[in-house]
Amino acid sequence: MSNPRTRIALLGTGLMGLPMARRLLGAGFPVSVWNRTAAKARPLADDGAEVAATAADAVRDANVVITMLEHGGVVRDVLETHGVREAMPAGALFVDMSSIQPAQAREHAAQLAARGVGALDAPVSGGTLGAESGTLAIMAGGAAADFERALPVFAPLGRATHVGPAGAGQLAKLANQMIVGITIGAVAEALLLAERGGADAAKVREALRGGFADSRILEVHGQRMLERDFAKRGAVAVQLKDLRNALVTAQPLPLELPITSLLEQLFASAAEHGLADVDHSGLWLELARRNGLG
Amino acid sequence: MSNPRTRIALLGTGLMGLPMARRLLGAGFPVSVWNRTAAKARPLADDGAEVAATAADAVRDANVVITMLEHGGVVRDVLETHGVREAMPAGALFVDMSSIQPAQAREHAAQLAARGVGALDAPVSGGTLGAESGTLAIMAGGAAADFERALPVFAPLGRATHVGPAGAGQLAKLANQMIVGITIGAVAEALLLAERGGADAAKVREALRGGFADSRILEVHGQRMLERDFAKRGAVAVQLKDLRNALVTAQPLPLELPITSLLEQLFASAAEHGLADVDHSGLWLELARRNGLG
Repeated sequence: MSNPRTRIALLGTGLMGLPMARRLLGAGFPVSVWNRTAAKARPLADDGAEVAATAADAVRDANVVITMLEHGGVVRDVLETHGVREAMPAGALFVDMSSIQPAQAREHAAQLAARGVGALDAPVSGGTLGAESGTLAIMAGGAAADFERALPVFAPLGRATHVGPAGAGQLAKLANQMIVGITIGAVAEALLLAERGGADAAKVREALRGGFADSRILEVHGQRMLERDFAKRGAVAVQLKDLRNALVTAQPLPLELPITSLLEQLFASAAEHGLADVDHSGLWLELARRNGLG
Repeated sequence: MSNPRTRIALLGTGLMGLPMARRLLGAGFPVSVWNRTAAKARPLADDGAEVAATAADAVRDANVVITMLEHGGVVRDVLETHGVREAMPAGALFVDMSSIQPAQAREHAAQLAARGVGALDAPVSGGTLGAESGTLAIMAGGAAADFERALPVFAPLGRATHVGPAGAGQLAKLANQMIVGITIGAVAEALLLAERGGADAAKVREALRGGFADSRILEVHGQRMLERDFAKRGAVAVQLKDLRNALVTAQPLPLELPITSLLEQLFASAAEHGLADVDHSGLWLELARRNGLG
Protein backbone atom coordinates (compact mmCIF):
# COMPACT_ATOMS: atom_id res chain seq x y z
CA MET A 1 0.00 0.00 0.00
CA SER A 2 2.53 2.64 1.07
CA ASN A 3 4.88 3.41 -1.73
CA PRO A 4 8.32 4.62 -0.59
CA ARG A 5 8.56 6.64 -3.79
CA THR A 6 5.40 8.60 -2.91
CA ARG A 7 6.62 11.58 -0.92
CA ILE A 8 3.83 13.53 0.75
CA ALA A 9 3.79 17.16 1.85
CA LEU A 10 1.00 18.12 4.24
CA LEU A 11 0.28 21.82 4.70
CA GLY A 12 -1.86 22.79 7.67
CA THR A 13 -1.34 20.72 10.79
CA GLY A 14 -4.28 21.94 12.84
CA LEU A 15 -6.95 19.88 14.60
CA MET A 16 -7.52 17.80 11.46
CA GLY A 17 -4.16 17.97 9.67
CA LEU A 18 -2.07 16.86 12.64
CA PRO A 19 -3.74 13.46 13.17
CA MET A 20 -3.93 12.98 9.39
CA ALA A 21 -0.14 13.49 9.14
CA ARG A 22 0.33 10.90 11.90
CA ARG A 23 -1.85 8.37 10.02
CA LEU A 24 0.22 8.89 6.83
CA LEU A 25 3.51 8.54 8.73
CA GLY A 26 2.14 5.43 10.44
CA ALA A 27 1.40 3.95 7.00
CA GLY A 28 5.07 4.35 6.04
CA PHE A 29 4.94 7.42 3.82
CA PRO A 30 7.74 9.98 4.04
CA VAL A 31 5.88 13.18 5.02
CA SER A 32 7.09 16.77 5.15
CA VAL A 33 4.84 19.15 7.06
CA TRP A 34 4.36 22.88 7.33
CA ASN A 35 2.02 25.11 9.30
CA ARG A 36 1.67 28.88 9.35
CA THR A 37 2.02 28.79 13.14
CA ALA A 38 5.17 26.66 13.18
CA ALA A 39 4.69 25.44 16.76
CA LYS A 40 1.69 23.36 15.64
CA ALA A 41 3.80 21.38 13.15
CA ARG A 42 6.86 20.81 15.38
CA PRO A 43 5.47 17.88 17.48
CA LEU A 44 5.28 15.84 14.25
CA ALA A 45 9.10 15.68 14.15
CA ASP A 46 8.84 13.06 16.91
CA ASP A 47 6.60 10.99 14.61
CA GLY A 48 9.21 11.07 11.86
CA ALA A 49 7.96 14.01 9.81
CA GLU A 50 10.31 16.49 8.20
CA VAL A 51 9.21 19.88 9.54
CA ALA A 52 9.79 22.45 6.78
CA ALA A 53 10.57 26.12 7.39
CA THR A 54 8.39 27.30 4.51
CA ALA A 55 5.47 25.87 2.56
CA ALA A 56 7.56 26.01 -0.63
CA ASP A 57 10.32 23.98 1.04
CA ALA A 58 7.79 21.39 2.18
CA VAL A 59 6.45 20.71 -1.32
CA ARG A 60 9.64 20.90 -3.42
CA ASP A 61 10.28 17.12 -3.54
CA ALA A 62 6.69 15.96 -2.99
CA ASN A 63 4.68 13.79 -5.37
CA VAL A 64 1.47 14.48 -3.46
CA VAL A 65 0.71 17.77 -1.70
CA ILE A 66 -2.17 17.72 0.78
CA THR A 67 -3.68 20.93 2.15
CA MET A 68 -5.95 20.99 5.20
CA LEU A 69 -6.67 24.66 5.74
CA GLU A 70 -9.39 26.87 7.17
CA HIS A 71 -11.09 28.15 4.01
CA GLY A 72 -10.58 28.93 0.34
CA GLY A 73 -8.78 32.21 0.96
CA VAL A 74 -6.09 30.46 2.99
CA VAL A 75 -5.66 27.80 0.30
CA ARG A 76 -5.17 30.52 -2.31
CA ASP A 77 -2.65 32.30 -0.06
CA VAL A 78 -0.66 29.12 0.36
CA LEU A 79 -0.74 28.41 -3.38
CA GLU A 80 0.19 31.99 -4.37
CA THR A 81 1.75 34.10 -1.61
CA HIS A 82 3.58 31.16 -0.06
CA GLY A 83 4.76 30.02 -3.51
CA VAL A 84 3.44 26.46 -3.38
CA ARG A 85 2.11 26.53 -6.93
CA GLU A 86 5.54 27.53 -8.28
CA ALA A 87 7.48 25.14 -6.03
CA MET A 88 5.47 21.96 -6.78
CA PRO A 89 7.28 19.67 -9.23
CA ALA A 90 5.54 19.10 -12.59
CA GLY A 91 3.65 15.80 -12.51
CA ALA A 92 2.84 16.19 -8.82
CA LEU A 93 -0.71 15.91 -7.46
CA PHE A 94 -2.34 18.61 -5.36
CA VAL A 95 -5.04 17.28 -3.00
CA ASP A 96 -6.99 19.99 -1.21
CA MET A 97 -8.83 18.39 1.69
CA SER A 98 -10.01 21.75 3.09
CA SER A 99 -13.70 22.69 2.85
CA ILE A 100 -13.89 25.56 0.35
CA GLN A 101 -16.35 26.77 -2.28
CA PRO A 102 -16.68 24.55 -5.40
CA ALA A 103 -15.93 27.52 -7.69
CA GLN A 104 -12.65 28.20 -5.85
CA ALA A 105 -11.70 24.54 -6.11
CA ARG A 106 -12.30 24.59 -9.87
CA GLU A 107 -10.21 27.78 -10.18
CA HIS A 108 -7.30 26.24 -8.27
CA ALA A 109 -7.49 23.08 -10.39
CA ALA A 110 -7.40 25.08 -13.65
CA GLN A 111 -4.40 27.13 -12.49
CA LEU A 112 -2.51 24.01 -11.43
CA ALA A 113 -3.35 22.17 -14.66
CA ALA A 114 -1.69 25.03 -16.56
CA ARG A 115 1.52 24.14 -14.71
CA GLY A 116 1.22 20.39 -15.33
CA VAL A 117 0.05 19.65 -11.80
CA GLY A 118 -3.02 17.50 -11.25
CA ALA A 119 -5.55 18.48 -8.61
CA LEU A 120 -8.29 16.92 -6.52
CA ASP A 121 -10.71 18.67 -4.19
CA ALA A 122 -11.22 16.12 -1.44
CA PRO A 123 -12.97 17.56 1.62
CA VAL A 124 -13.85 15.25 4.45
CA SER A 125 -16.54 14.51 6.96
CA GLY A 126 -15.98 12.79 10.28
CA GLY A 127 -14.20 15.36 12.44
CA THR A 128 -11.07 14.95 14.54
CA LEU A 129 -12.23 11.53 15.70
CA GLY A 130 -12.42 10.34 12.10
CA ALA A 131 -9.01 11.88 11.37
CA GLU A 132 -7.45 10.08 14.34
CA SER A 133 -8.99 6.71 13.56
CA GLY A 134 -8.59 6.90 9.77
CA THR A 135 -12.33 6.68 9.20
CA LEU A 136 -12.97 9.97 7.40
CA ALA A 137 -15.50 10.11 4.58
CA ILE A 138 -13.46 11.63 1.72
CA MET A 139 -15.46 13.20 -1.14
CA ALA A 140 -13.16 13.65 -4.13
CA GLY A 141 -13.62 15.75 -7.27
CA GLY A 142 -11.21 15.73 -10.22
CA ALA A 143 -9.97 13.47 -13.01
CA ALA A 144 -10.46 9.73 -12.53
CA ALA A 145 -6.75 9.07 -13.13
CA ASP A 146 -5.80 11.53 -10.38
CA PHE A 147 -8.30 9.90 -8.03
CA GLU A 148 -6.69 6.51 -8.73
CA ARG A 149 -3.24 7.96 -8.00
CA ALA A 150 -4.46 9.35 -4.68
CA LEU A 151 -6.10 6.14 -3.45
CA PRO A 152 -3.00 4.76 -1.65
CA VAL A 153 -2.66 8.11 0.14
CA PHE A 154 -6.37 8.20 1.05
CA ALA A 155 -6.30 4.61 2.36
CA PRO A 156 -4.84 5.41 5.83
CA LEU A 157 -7.20 8.40 6.18
CA GLY A 158 -10.62 6.95 5.43
CA ARG A 159 -13.09 5.88 2.76
CA ALA A 160 -12.78 7.88 -0.47
CA THR A 161 -15.50 8.24 -3.11
CA HIS A 162 -14.94 9.84 -6.52
CA VAL A 163 -18.02 12.05 -6.94
CA GLY A 164 -17.25 13.84 -10.23
CA PRO A 165 -14.98 16.43 -11.87
CA ALA A 166 -13.15 19.34 -10.19
CA GLY A 167 -15.39 21.01 -7.60
CA ALA A 168 -17.62 17.95 -7.16
CA GLY A 169 -15.94 16.99 -3.88
CA GLN A 170 -16.82 20.41 -2.48
CA LEU A 171 -20.38 20.07 -3.80
CA ALA A 172 -20.69 16.76 -1.96
CA LYS A 173 -19.40 18.37 1.22
CA LEU A 174 -22.00 21.15 0.88
CA ALA A 175 -24.71 18.53 0.28
CA ASN A 176 -23.52 16.81 3.45
CA GLN A 177 -23.67 20.02 5.49
CA MET A 178 -27.09 20.99 4.12
CA ILE A 179 -28.53 17.63 5.16
CA VAL A 180 -26.85 17.82 8.57
CA GLY A 181 -28.09 21.38 9.27
CA ILE A 182 -31.65 20.77 8.08
CA THR A 183 -31.97 17.42 9.85
CA ILE A 184 -30.82 19.05 13.09
CA GLY A 185 -33.70 21.48 12.61
CA ALA A 186 -36.14 18.62 11.95
CA VAL A 187 -35.13 16.74 15.08
CA ALA A 188 -35.20 19.93 17.19
CA GLU A 189 -38.75 20.85 16.12
CA ALA A 190 -39.98 17.27 16.56
CA LEU A 191 -38.54 16.92 20.06
CA LEU A 192 -39.85 20.37 21.03
CA LEU A 193 -43.38 19.44 19.92
CA ALA A 194 -43.20 16.11 21.75
CA GLU A 195 -41.92 17.72 24.95
CA ARG A 196 -44.14 20.79 24.88
CA GLY A 197 -47.15 18.62 23.98
CA GLY A 198 -46.67 16.50 27.08
CA ALA A 199 -44.92 13.36 25.81
CA ASP A 200 -41.68 11.92 27.18
CA ALA A 201 -39.32 13.28 24.51
CA ALA A 202 -36.56 10.76 25.33
CA LYS A 203 -39.01 7.90 24.85
CA VAL A 204 -40.25 9.47 21.62
CA ARG A 205 -36.67 9.54 20.27
CA GLU A 206 -36.33 5.89 21.31
CA ALA A 207 -39.62 4.95 19.61
CA LEU A 208 -38.50 6.59 16.36
CA ARG A 209 -35.17 4.76 16.14
CA GLY A 210 -35.11 2.15 13.38
CA GLY A 211 -38.01 3.71 11.46
CA PHE A 212 -38.06 6.16 8.56
CA ALA A 213 -37.36 9.09 10.91
CA ASP A 214 -34.11 7.51 12.02
CA SER A 215 -30.81 9.20 11.23
CA ARG A 216 -27.35 9.70 12.67
CA ILE A 217 -28.59 13.17 13.70
CA LEU A 218 -31.54 11.72 15.66
CA GLU A 219 -29.13 9.30 17.29
CA VAL A 220 -26.30 11.69 18.18
CA HIS A 221 -27.61 15.27 18.08
CA GLY A 222 -31.09 14.28 19.28
CA GLN A 223 -29.46 12.86 22.39
CA ARG A 224 -27.51 16.10 22.91
CA MET A 225 -30.80 18.07 22.73
CA LEU A 226 -32.43 15.81 25.30
CA GLU A 227 -29.44 16.15 27.65
CA ARG A 228 -29.12 19.91 26.93
CA ASP A 229 -25.47 19.10 26.19
CA PHE A 230 -24.44 21.74 23.67
CA ALA A 231 -20.67 21.61 24.22
CA LYS A 232 -19.10 22.33 20.84
CA ARG A 233 -18.20 19.45 18.54
CA GLY A 234 -19.38 21.11 15.29
CA ALA A 235 -20.06 24.81 15.93
CA VAL A 236 -23.14 26.82 14.96
CA ALA A 237 -20.74 29.32 13.30
CA VAL A 238 -19.26 26.62 11.06
CA GLN A 239 -22.72 25.23 10.19
CA LEU A 240 -23.77 28.76 9.25
CA LYS A 241 -20.68 29.25 7.04
CA ASP A 242 -21.41 25.94 5.28
CA LEU A 243 -25.06 26.82 4.61
CA ARG A 244 -23.96 30.21 3.27
CA ASN A 245 -21.44 28.51 0.98
CA ALA A 246 -24.23 26.25 -0.28
CA LEU A 247 -26.44 29.27 -1.05
CA VAL A 248 -23.54 31.16 -2.68
CA THR A 249 -22.91 28.09 -4.83
CA ALA A 250 -26.59 27.64 -5.73
CA GLN A 251 -27.23 31.29 -6.59
CA PRO A 252 -25.53 31.52 -10.04
CA LEU A 253 -26.72 28.06 -11.24
CA PRO A 254 -29.42 29.42 -10.55
CA LEU A 255 -30.97 27.18 -7.92
CA GLU A 256 -33.47 28.24 -5.27
CA LEU A 257 -33.06 26.23 -2.05
CA PRO A 258 -35.91 27.36 0.23
CA ILE A 259 -35.24 24.97 3.11
CA THR A 260 -31.50 25.66 3.16
CA SER A 261 -32.31 29.40 3.08
CA LEU A 262 -34.58 29.10 6.11
CA LEU A 263 -31.98 27.12 8.04
CA GLU A 264 -29.36 29.75 7.15
CA GLN A 265 -31.67 32.34 8.75
CA LEU A 266 -32.26 30.21 11.84
CA PHE A 267 -28.56 29.46 12.38
CA ALA A 268 -27.75 33.16 11.76
CA SER A 269 -30.30 34.14 14.39
CA ALA A 270 -28.77 31.58 16.76
CA ALA A 271 -25.33 33.09 16.20
CA GLU A 272 -26.71 36.61 16.78
CA HIS A 273 -28.21 35.43 20.05
CA GLY A 274 -24.92 34.27 21.51
CA LEU A 275 -24.90 30.70 20.22
CA ALA A 276 -22.15 30.97 17.56
CA ASP A 277 -19.75 28.90 19.58
CA VAL A 278 -22.07 26.14 20.83
CA ASP A 279 -22.61 22.81 19.09
CA HIS A 280 -24.85 23.00 15.99
CA SER A 281 -27.37 20.83 17.85
CA GLY A 282 -27.83 24.08 19.84
CA LEU A 283 -30.28 25.14 17.13
CA TRP A 284 -32.67 23.56 19.65
CA LEU A 285 -31.86 26.51 21.99
CA GLU A 286 -32.69 29.02 19.25
CA LEU A 287 -36.05 27.37 18.56
CA ALA A 288 -36.75 27.15 22.29
CA ARG A 289 -35.84 30.84 22.73
CA ARG A 290 -38.21 31.86 19.94
CA ASN A 291 -40.92 30.00 21.79
CA GLY A 292 -40.17 31.59 25.13
CA LEU A 293 -38.68 28.38 26.47
CA GLY A 294 -35.09 29.66 26.59
CA MET B 1 -47.60 -15.00 25.09
CA SER B 2 -51.04 -15.38 23.51
CA ASN B 3 -53.66 -15.60 26.15
CA PRO B 4 -56.77 -17.54 25.13
CA ARG B 5 -58.77 -15.38 27.54
CA THR B 6 -57.78 -12.21 25.65
CA ARG B 7 -60.43 -11.75 23.02
CA ILE B 8 -59.58 -9.10 20.45
CA ALA B 9 -61.89 -7.03 18.24
CA LEU B 10 -60.24 -5.28 15.32
CA LEU B 11 -62.22 -2.51 13.60
CA GLY B 12 -60.97 -1.35 10.23
CA THR B 13 -59.49 -4.04 8.03
CA GLY B 14 -57.97 -1.89 5.32
CA LEU B 15 -54.41 -1.96 3.99
CA MET B 16 -52.98 -1.92 7.52
CA GLY B 17 -55.74 -3.54 9.59
CA LEU B 18 -56.06 -6.65 7.43
CA PRO B 19 -52.47 -7.90 7.80
CA MET B 20 -52.50 -6.90 11.49
CA ALA B 21 -55.59 -9.06 12.05
CA ARG B 22 -53.76 -11.94 10.36
CA ARG B 23 -50.72 -11.49 12.65
CA LEU B 24 -52.99 -11.56 15.73
CA LEU B 25 -54.83 -14.66 14.48
CA GLY B 26 -51.49 -16.28 13.73
CA ALA B 27 -50.40 -15.63 17.32
CA GLY B 28 -53.42 -17.60 18.55
CA PHE B 29 -55.74 -14.79 19.67
CA PRO B 30 -59.47 -15.13 19.01
CA VAL B 31 -60.22 -12.09 16.83
CA SER B 32 -63.54 -10.64 15.70
CA VAL B 33 -63.32 -8.15 12.87
CA TRP B 34 -65.51 -5.48 11.33
CA ASN B 35 -65.11 -3.06 8.47
CA ARG B 36 -67.47 -0.38 7.17
CA THR B 37 -67.12 -1.88 3.68
CA ALA B 38 -67.89 -5.45 4.75
CA ALA B 39 -66.23 -7.06 1.71
CA LYS B 40 -62.81 -5.99 3.05
CA ALA B 41 -63.30 -7.94 6.29
CA ARG B 42 -64.78 -11.12 4.78
CA PRO B 43 -61.51 -12.74 3.58
CA LEU B 44 -60.40 -12.90 7.23
CA ALA B 45 -63.01 -15.61 7.89
CA ASP B 46 -60.63 -18.01 6.10
CA ASP B 47 -57.95 -17.07 8.61
CA GLY B 48 -60.22 -17.96 11.51
CA ALA B 49 -61.63 -14.52 12.34
CA GLU B 50 -65.21 -14.00 13.36
CA VAL B 51 -66.58 -11.47 10.89
CA ALA B 52 -69.13 -9.33 12.72
CA ALA B 53 -72.14 -7.68 11.08
CA THR B 54 -71.80 -4.49 13.11
CA ALA B 55 -69.01 -2.78 15.02
CA ALA B 56 -70.99 -3.10 18.24
CA ASP B 57 -71.35 -6.86 17.70
CA ALA B 58 -67.60 -7.16 17.12
CA VAL B 59 -66.65 -5.57 20.44
CA ARG B 60 -69.34 -6.97 22.77
CA ASP B 61 -67.20 -9.82 24.15
CA ALA B 62 -63.78 -8.27 23.53
CA ASN B 63 -61.16 -7.56 26.20
CA VAL B 64 -59.10 -5.50 23.76
CA VAL B 65 -60.60 -3.40 20.97
CA ILE B 66 -58.17 -2.23 18.27
CA THR B 67 -59.13 0.45 15.76
CA MET B 68 -57.14 1.08 12.58
CA LEU B 69 -59.07 3.80 10.80
CA GLU B 70 -58.47 6.65 8.40
CA HIS B 71 -58.55 9.67 10.72
CA GLY B 72 -59.95 10.99 13.97
CA GLY B 73 -63.41 11.69 12.58
CA VAL B 74 -63.86 8.06 11.60
CA VAL B 75 -62.68 6.89 15.03
CA ARG B 76 -65.27 9.17 16.68
CA ASP B 77 -67.99 7.85 14.33
CA VAL B 78 -67.15 4.28 15.22
CA LEU B 79 -67.12 5.06 18.95
CA GLU B 80 -70.36 7.07 18.84
CA THR B 81 -72.56 6.48 15.80
CA HIS B 82 -71.63 2.82 15.52
CA GLY B 83 -72.14 2.36 19.28
CA VAL B 84 -68.76 0.90 20.12
CA ARG B 85 -68.33 3.02 23.26
CA GLU B 86 -71.61 1.72 24.66
CA ALA B 87 -71.04 -1.87 23.58
CA MET B 88 -67.57 -2.33 25.02
CA PRO B 89 -67.60 -4.27 28.29
CA ALA B 90 -66.40 -2.36 31.38
CA GLY B 91 -62.80 -3.26 32.12
CA ALA B 92 -61.97 -3.62 28.44
CA LEU B 93 -59.07 -1.79 26.79
CA PHE B 94 -59.49 0.43 23.72
CA VAL B 95 -56.33 0.65 21.59
CA ASP B 96 -56.59 3.20 18.76
CA MET B 97 -53.77 2.50 16.32
CA SER B 98 -55.06 5.05 13.77
CA SER B 99 -53.10 8.28 13.22
CA ILE B 100 -55.27 11.07 14.61
CA GLN B 101 -54.69 14.40 16.37
CA PRO B 102 -53.36 14.18 19.95
CA ALA B 103 -56.25 16.33 21.24
CA GLN B 104 -58.81 13.93 19.74
CA ALA B 105 -57.00 10.98 21.30
CA ARG B 106 -57.11 12.65 24.73
CA GLU B 107 -60.82 13.36 24.27
CA HIS B 108 -61.60 9.73 23.35
CA ALA B 109 -59.56 8.49 26.33
CA ALA B 110 -61.44 10.77 28.75
CA GLN B 111 -64.84 9.68 27.42
CA LEU B 112 -63.90 6.01 27.66
CA ALA B 113 -62.45 6.42 31.17
CA ALA B 114 -65.87 7.75 32.25
CA ARG B 115 -67.29 4.35 31.23
CA GLY B 116 -64.56 2.34 33.00
CA VAL B 117 -62.78 1.52 29.75
CA GLY B 118 -59.00 2.06 29.51
CA ALA B 119 -57.53 3.60 26.38
CA LEU B 120 -54.23 3.80 24.57
CA ASP B 121 -53.40 5.86 21.50
CA ALA B 122 -50.91 3.68 19.67
CA PRO B 123 -50.25 4.84 16.10
CA VAL B 124 -47.66 3.03 14.07
CA SER B 125 -44.89 3.61 11.58
CA GLY B 126 -43.66 1.03 9.09
CA GLY B 127 -46.42 0.79 6.48
CA THR B 128 -48.07 -2.31 5.06
CA LEU B 129 -44.73 -4.12 4.92
CA GLY B 130 -44.26 -3.59 8.65
CA ALA B 131 -47.85 -4.71 9.28
CA GLU B 132 -47.34 -7.92 7.29
CA SER B 133 -44.01 -8.80 8.89
CA GLY B 134 -44.93 -7.72 12.43
CA THR B 135 -42.19 -5.10 12.55
CA LEU B 136 -44.25 -1.95 13.10
CA ALA B 137 -42.93 0.78 15.38
CA ILE B 138 -45.80 1.29 17.83
CA MET B 139 -45.85 4.59 19.76
CA ALA B 140 -48.18 4.28 22.72
CA GLY B 141 -49.71 6.96 24.94
CA GLY B 142 -51.80 6.21 28.02
CA ALA B 143 -51.52 4.80 31.53
CA ALA B 144 -48.53 2.54 32.22
CA ALA B 145 -50.81 -0.25 33.48
CA ASP B 146 -52.83 -0.19 30.26
CA PHE B 147 -49.60 -0.28 28.24
CA GLU B 148 -48.50 -3.38 30.17
CA ARG B 149 -51.86 -5.04 29.51
CA ALA B 150 -51.51 -4.34 25.78
CA LEU B 151 -47.97 -5.71 25.43
CA PRO B 152 -48.98 -9.33 24.57
CA VAL B 153 -51.29 -7.95 21.89
CA PHE B 154 -48.60 -5.62 20.50
CA ALA B 155 -46.00 -8.42 20.42
CA PRO B 156 -47.11 -10.01 17.11
CA LEU B 157 -47.44 -6.56 15.52
CA GLY B 158 -44.10 -4.90 16.23
CA ARG B 159 -41.97 -3.04 18.75
CA ALA B 160 -44.00 -0.92 21.19
CA THR B 161 -42.66 2.03 23.19
CA HIS B 162 -44.62 3.78 25.93
CA VAL B 163 -44.00 7.46 25.23
CA GLY B 164 -46.20 9.15 27.84
CA PRO B 165 -49.83 9.80 28.85
CA ALA B 166 -52.92 9.89 26.58
CA GLY B 167 -52.14 11.70 23.32
CA ALA B 168 -48.38 11.09 23.59
CA GLY B 169 -48.48 8.27 21.06
CA GLN B 170 -50.02 10.64 18.53
CA LEU B 171 -47.43 13.31 19.40
CA ALA B 172 -44.68 10.77 18.70
CA LYS B 173 -46.27 9.91 15.36
CA LEU B 174 -46.40 13.61 14.46
CA ALA B 175 -42.74 13.98 15.49
CA ASN B 176 -41.98 11.01 13.22
CA GLN B 177 -43.81 12.55 10.29
CA MET B 178 -42.22 15.98 10.80
CA ILE B 179 -38.74 14.45 10.70
CA VAL B 180 -39.61 12.33 7.66
CA GLY B 181 -41.08 15.27 5.72
CA ILE B 182 -38.28 17.71 6.55
CA THR B 183 -35.52 15.18 5.90
CA ILE B 184 -37.03 14.41 2.50
CA GLY B 185 -36.70 18.15 1.80
CA ALA B 186 -33.10 18.16 3.00
CA VAL B 187 -32.10 15.24 0.80
CA ALA B 188 -33.96 16.69 -2.21
CA GLU B 189 -32.20 20.07 -1.96
CA ALA B 190 -28.80 18.46 -1.40
CA LEU B 191 -29.12 16.11 -4.39
CA LEU B 192 -30.43 18.95 -6.57
CA LEU B 193 -27.42 21.13 -5.69
CA ALA B 194 -25.02 18.26 -6.34
CA GLU B 195 -26.59 17.39 -9.68
CA ARG B 196 -27.14 20.94 -10.90
CA GLY B 197 -23.63 21.90 -9.77
CA GLY B 198 -22.08 19.18 -11.93
CA ALA B 199 -21.35 16.34 -9.49
CA ASP B 200 -22.49 12.73 -9.90
CA ALA B 201 -25.47 12.85 -7.50
CA ALA B 202 -25.59 9.05 -7.10
CA LYS B 203 -21.94 9.03 -6.07
CA VAL B 204 -22.58 11.93 -3.70
CA ARG B 205 -25.34 9.95 -1.98
CA GLU B 206 -22.95 7.00 -1.75
CA ALA B 207 -20.17 9.19 -0.28
CA LEU B 208 -22.54 10.52 2.38
CA ARG B 209 -23.70 7.10 3.61
CA GLY B 210 -22.29 6.24 7.03
CA GLY B 211 -21.55 9.88 7.96
CA PHE B 212 -23.59 12.44 9.90
CA ALA B 213 -25.79 13.11 6.85
CA ASP B 214 -26.89 9.50 6.74
CA SER B 215 -30.51 8.57 7.38
CA ARG B 216 -33.14 6.06 6.33
CA ILE B 217 -34.50 8.86 4.11
CA LEU B 218 -31.13 9.33 2.33
CA GLU B 219 -30.98 5.56 1.88
CA VAL B 220 -34.52 4.89 0.67
CA HIS B 221 -36.06 8.16 -0.55
CA GLY B 222 -32.72 9.52 -1.83
CA GLN B 223 -32.50 6.48 -4.08
CA ARG B 224 -36.05 7.10 -5.33
CA MET B 225 -35.08 10.69 -6.23
CA LEU B 226 -32.01 9.51 -8.15
CA GLU B 227 -34.08 6.94 -10.05
CA ARG B 228 -36.98 9.39 -10.54
CA ASP B 229 -39.14 6.60 -9.12
CA PHE B 230 -42.02 8.40 -7.44
CA ALA B 231 -44.55 5.56 -7.42
CA LYS B 232 -46.62 6.03 -4.27
CA ARG B 233 -45.58 4.27 -1.08
CA GLY B 234 -46.30 7.20 1.28
CA ALA B 235 -48.28 9.88 -0.58
CA VAL B 236 -47.60 13.62 -0.71
CA ALA B 237 -51.26 14.12 0.35
CA VAL B 238 -50.75 12.05 3.52
CA GLN B 239 -47.45 13.79 4.32
CA LEU B 240 -49.25 17.13 3.93
CA LYS B 241 -52.07 16.02 6.26
CA ASP B 242 -49.51 14.92 8.87
CA LEU B 243 -47.60 18.23 8.73
CA ARG B 244 -50.91 20.12 9.06
CA ASN B 245 -51.84 18.00 12.08
CA ALA B 246 -48.46 18.86 13.61
CA LEU B 247 -49.06 22.59 13.08
CA VAL B 248 -52.64 22.36 14.40
CA THR B 249 -51.27 20.60 17.48
CA ALA B 250 -48.45 23.13 17.97
CA GLN B 251 -50.61 26.22 17.55
CA PRO B 252 -52.43 26.29 20.92
CA LEU B 253 -49.38 25.27 22.99
CA PRO B 254 -48.28 27.78 21.54
CA LEU B 255 -45.30 26.54 19.58
CA GLU B 256 -43.89 28.10 16.44
CA LEU B 257 -42.37 25.47 14.12
CA PRO B 258 -40.82 27.45 11.24
CA ILE B 259 -39.27 24.51 9.40
CA THR B 260 -42.40 22.37 9.62
CA SER B 261 -44.41 25.40 8.40
CA LEU B 262 -42.18 25.81 5.35
CA LEU B 263 -42.42 22.10 4.50
CA GLU B 264 -46.21 22.30 4.86
CA GLN B 265 -46.15 25.06 2.22
CA LEU B 266 -43.84 23.09 -0.08
CA PHE B 267 -45.89 19.88 0.14
CA ALA B 268 -49.09 21.94 -0.34
CA SER B 269 -47.59 23.50 -3.47
CA ALA B 270 -46.60 20.02 -4.68
CA ALA B 271 -50.19 18.81 -4.18
CA GLU B 272 -51.54 21.88 -6.03
CA HIS B 273 -49.21 21.09 -8.92
CA GLY B 274 -50.59 17.61 -9.49
CA LEU B 275 -48.30 15.67 -7.13
CA ALA B 276 -50.83 14.82 -4.35
CA ASP B 277 -50.84 11.16 -5.28
CA VAL B 278 -47.13 10.56 -5.87
CA ASP B 279 -44.68 9.31 -3.25
CA HIS B 280 -43.62 11.96 -0.70
CA SER B 281 -40.08 11.68 -2.09
CA GLY B 282 -41.71 13.48 -5.04
CA LEU B 283 -41.05 16.73 -3.15
CA TRP B 284 -37.92 16.54 -5.34
CA LEU B 285 -40.21 17.16 -8.36
CA GLU B 286 -41.73 20.24 -6.70
CA LEU B 287 -38.28 21.71 -5.98
CA ALA B 288 -37.13 20.85 -9.51
CA ARG B 289 -40.25 22.47 -10.96
CA ARG B 290 -39.64 25.68 -8.98
CA ASN B 291 -36.19 25.74 -10.51
CA GLY B 292 -37.37 25.19 -14.06
CA LEU B 293 -36.05 21.63 -14.07
CA GLY B 294 -39.47 19.96 -14.14
